[in-house]
Amino acid sequence: MTRDDVLGLDAADPLAVLREQFVIPPGLIYLDGNSLGVLPRTTAARVQQVVQEEWGVGLIRSWNSAGWIDLPQRLGDKIAQLVGVGPGELVVADSTSVNVFKVLSAALAMVRANAVGGAPQRSVILSERSNFPTDLYIAQAVAQQQGFELVLAEADDIPSLLNDRTAVLMLTHVNYRTGRMFDMAALSQAAHAAGVLTIWDLAHSAGAVPVALTADGADFAVGCGYKYLNGGPGAPAFVWAHPQHAERFWQPLAGWMGHAAPFEFTPDYRPAAGIARYLCGTPPVLSMAALDCGLDTVLAAGPLGGMPALRAKSLALSRLFAKQVMVTCPGLRLVSPMDDALRGSQVCFSHPSNGYALMQALIARGVIGDFRAPDILRFGFTPLYVRFVDAWDAAQHLAQVISSGEWQRPEFNQRQAVT
Amino acid sequence: MTRDDVLGLDAADPLAVLREQFVIPPGLIYLDGNSLGVLPRTTAARVQQVVQEEWGVGLIRSWNSAGWIDLPQRLGDKIAQLVGVGPGELVVADSTSVNVFKVLSAALAMVRANAVGGAPQRSVILSERSNFPTDLYIAQAVAQQQGFELVLAEADDIPSLLNDRTAVLMLTHVNYRTGRMFDMAALSQAAHAAGVLTIWDLAHSAGAVPVALTADGADFAVGCGYKYLNGGPGAPAFVWAHPQHAERFWQPLAGWMGHAAPFEFTPDYRPAAGIARYLCGTPPVLSMAALDCGLDTVLAAGPLGGMPALRAKSLALSRLFAKQVMVTCPGLRLVSPMDDALRGSQVCFSHPSNGYALMQALIARGVIGDFRAPDILRFGFTPLYVRFVDAWDAAQHLAQVISSGEWQRPEFNQRQAVT
Repeated sequence: MTRDDVLGLDAADPLAVLREQFVIPPGLIYLDGNSLGVLPRTTAARVQQVVQEEWGVGLIRSWNSAGWIDLPQRLGDKIAQLVGVGPGELVVADSTSVNVFKVLSAALAMVRANAVGGAPQRSVILSERSNFPTDLYIAQAVAQQQGFELVLAEADDIPSLLNDRTAVLMLTHVNYRTGRMFDMAALSQAAHAAGVLTIWDLAHSAGAVPVALTADGADFAVGCGYKYLNGGPGAPAFVWAHPQHAERFWQPLAGWMGHAAPFEFTPDYRPAAGIARYLCGTPPVLSMAALDCGLDTVLAAGPLGGMPALRAKSLALSRLFAKQVMVTCPGLRLVSPMDDALRGSQVCFSHPSNGYALMQALIARGVIGDFRAPDILRFGFTPLYVRFVDAWDAAQHLAQVISSGEWQRPEFNQRQAVT
Repeated sequence: MTRDDVLGLDAADPLAVLREQFVIPPGLIYLDGNSLGVLPRTTAARVQQVVQEEWGVGLIRSWNSAGWIDLPQRLGDKIAQLVGVGPGELVVADSTSVNVFKVLSAALAMVRANAVGGAPQRSVILSERSNFPTDLYIAQAVAQQQGFELVLAEADDIPSLLNDRTAVLMLTHVNYRTGRMFDMAALSQAAHAAGVLTIWDLAHSAGAVPVALTADGADFAVGCGYKYLNGGPGAPAFVWAHPQHAERFWQPLAGWMGHAAPFEFTPDYRPAAGIARYLCGTPPVLSMAALDCGLDTVLAAGPLGGMPALRAKSLALSRLFAKQVMVTCPGLRLVSPMDDALRGSQVCFSHPSNGYALMQALIARGVIGDFRAPDILRFGFTPLYVRFVDAWDAAQHLAQVISSGEWQRPEFNQRQAVT
């Protein structure tokens, strides 16, 4: 295969047109959409409109006239289409971390309510040892607060731990470090067979891989707005509860926006029907507006085949990159599965000692991935805007960074606050 | 007093220049800055810069190069100057509701840790019956979850309930319905004498009245970014813990941004030093940028006398308005204190049956206040941009709305989602 062959892949790609939806700095190869998606072309104007017209002129009236109050639901309905749930089942709110707290609290309330006299006590929250830390930190806090035990296991050991001591299985669908994807349907089925509730973090899934929460038997889900959904830095997150669970309990972040009638200003909490009770404070309108534009960039793939088409391109991109790097960079160890069924939308390599510096040197060349301590070089492939030639060129740059020794420069070995 | 006299007050007002910091729609009299502050002139350009340059061009690198990662602390240090605490003691994060949950959880953890064998059990969270509902809803949830009891009292009865059964006194410093302001120093002193911790919600105080959390002996505080701080719709909130408490416990929303070293990605939670452990998820950068501009509009009053000067003007504005309305609208009942020491930065009237329609008719005339169920017409006076002539004209309009009967039109009696 030559670079011209790869350019041919781009020329023949029916999804290539989707890249035009984005502002991408010239010359940059951006393989970090799994950390922060790129800027959609519509966002700047939309945010300006919200700032100058809706806020500046409409002021407080815009809660009604510009529909600010419905943003959590309106954006939620867009995300619902990407994760296989119905309209009205999902809302945008808060951060992923806060939403993990909500659904884990609600799930544990269900477990307590289901516990019967002679039944074995379910006291374990089960998760993956290399799950994204914020999920684990929140679970650790909830476990400590509510008298549960957080058990962390290797991915392959998880099925064997779905037993009558386990209350909740909480997993990130696609692992942030390895890109390994769990089989949501099989694990949810096994969990339910063992009487275990499931919580899925879709941070690296929503907009990246097809997700079918309802069909696959999930109980709760959360996800991130600023990665593959292109919502901008720190965009609000989302939360879903299966409709059969949504109204059974209220979660302890019982803020006024989750009240049945917030503007009655009554002193007693009365939870809203359905998923709206997972709202808490006032929605961040500017950030919501930006997320709305990001969601439209993903939904725009619909007429071109939607998530299945995006998925096929994503797999082809990551396969091309992984194969090239394995050929040209023998010092790197592939840590992502080459089996398409197990790989999310990223490819990761480890390096025993110089991963951080290698990534910094690569970024200096205009190829942006990221480093995940202690040893992971991570490359995300967002099929909406990454081209096959980007994957090819990125692999070439990585090989040159290593062969040239340029990564040894002092500036590439100086750690920054955010990696 | 005539309208010309009032125009003279504006002409002589050394703070009048501060109004030029804002975009105010021509002809509008905006007395709702206690619900949503107006748009600062700098915000649109700053948000555009963040969207187009920091996000669009800098992309993920901007977490370091544009200092995104420090926004919670950098903005926190600005708010710290307005509420009488030191730099590094306060952070911007999440919503007010979420922050109430954090500080209440931390305070109750302190109460449990302090409980000794023979001492009477402190099981009561004490608050005001007409406190803002979201504070009460969160307190209700936390109380239920952690085995405490929420006791709601009338404002005047609160001192008598500071006893050895009470764990925490949680109050909004300025009541959202009446504008009545508690004496933070006296109540904190009385609370401490009774062994009770204090939590202050500064939603209607920060940027509106002088606040001295440390000098007045507060233990914890939260506050809102989108009212008197002019941060925009749904702007992030803030949280403060007295430095002597900040590191004693971690609050259960133990997300990765509150970790001592988030980018080490370790599975075990290790809380950051000081107030940073009250951070949770990834900061909402666009909303933070807008809040930053809002904070600067308040800090700009510094050379003109700062919060004491703003306070003097605010009291003069609200006094003028209240007096005029009492003269011209005998059907309305004043529910805000006329005693300056007890009044925040708003004036409220009640009407037995037609409050909602009166407010809608007034808004149609371009005088914006808001209605708070069941019977309150609320008018906020933000001294940064409200003029004396606005207070005068608003009172005239209100009198005409009543005398003309225009409030009886059907469209003014149709309830909207947000009041």
